[in-house]
Amino acid sequence: MAQTLEELVDLARHCASAGNKQPLKYILSTCEEKNEEIFSCLGWAAYLTRWKGPEKNEQPTAYIVILGDRSLSDNFWCDHGIAAQTILLGARDQGLAGCMFGAVNIKRLAGFLSIDDHLEVKLVIALGKPVETIQIDPVGPEGDIRYFRDEHQVHHVPKRSLSDLIISTW
Amino acid sequence: MAQTLEELVDLARHCASAGNKQPLKYILSTCEEKNEEIFSCLGWAAYLTRWKGPEKNEQPTAYIVILGDRSLSDNFWCDHGIAAQTILLGARDQGLAGCMFGAVNIKRLAGFLSIDDHLEVKLVIALGKPVETIQIDPVGPEGDIRYFRDEHQVHHVPKRSLSDLIISTW
Repeated sequence: MAQTLEELVDLARHCASAGNKQPLKYILSTCEEKNEEIFSCLGWAAYLTRWKGPEKNEQPTAYIVILGDRSLSDNFWCDHGIAAQTILLGARDQGLAGCMFGAVNIKRLAGFLSIDDHLEVKLVIALGKPVETIQIDPVGPEGDIRYFRDEHQVHHVPKRSLSDLIISTW
Repeated sequence: MAQTLEELVDLARHCASAGNKQPLKYILSTCEEKNEEIFSCLGWAAYLTRWKGPEKNEQPTAYIVILGDRSLSDNFWCDHGIAAQTILLGARDQGLAGCMFGAVNIKRLAGFLSIDDHLEVKLVIALGKPVETIQIDPVGPEGDIRYFRDEHQVHHVPKRSLSDLIISTW
């Protein structure tokens, strides 16, 4: 798994970067103890108010923390989005699945991972073997975009329709 | 080509979005006249100071403008990076190539495309059949990350090494 994480970062390494500045850095973890610490810094599924996150035996087995190096750029634009999506698509190709976390207790995480002040935590990517069933649904007429779990524990994600997204075509 | 653009946006439609708010909207163009107008709003390759952008017969044949809808969210986080990378990877799979532009004359573009005030231009993606040769190089010891063209018109892009990007592994 440790080698897989390096391969995933190598994909991100080749990505576009604003002004090609490449200010992103990475911390990798496949260590059970560190994984538990990282897990404790993440805000899981805000819309599932009665769900505290995955059970112990279903928790992520690896993490990639994406950081912005302020000594290389003072603006990371959307570089971390480009890198994170590349990593997650690469992970799917390896039979893994994952999730990007923006809701992170950064101070706590910085302590656990000894993150230097010149590095800004942009995203945490959790990775593991997928066990959940996900279903994409259309957003209903009331416009509610909150994901939910049904009685069979299927995770439903409402997505807007293509015609809602495309404003004009020339 | 118009259908291909819709398929690419449909890939982006399925992407992760902060809080699943899905605030991104899209304007598509395969129209020669609109393409010329969009082209005139883009800042091409800032590091190639003697190059004014591609010649007429090598200019992009399609554009996807990614906008953030302020009526749906007041923060787009890195959603546009996630979407743009997905669109560009999808485009490569279709034999196309492209480039994300953050350096955009937004006021001028808003005029040409009748972009409403509640929409914020986040990125412009240019697409077309690739004709250039690109080579990824290691960043040299002097740390220069500026891309350049050699005497054979090969476009060189220096990328940092994997060991420069990975701060720690647990």
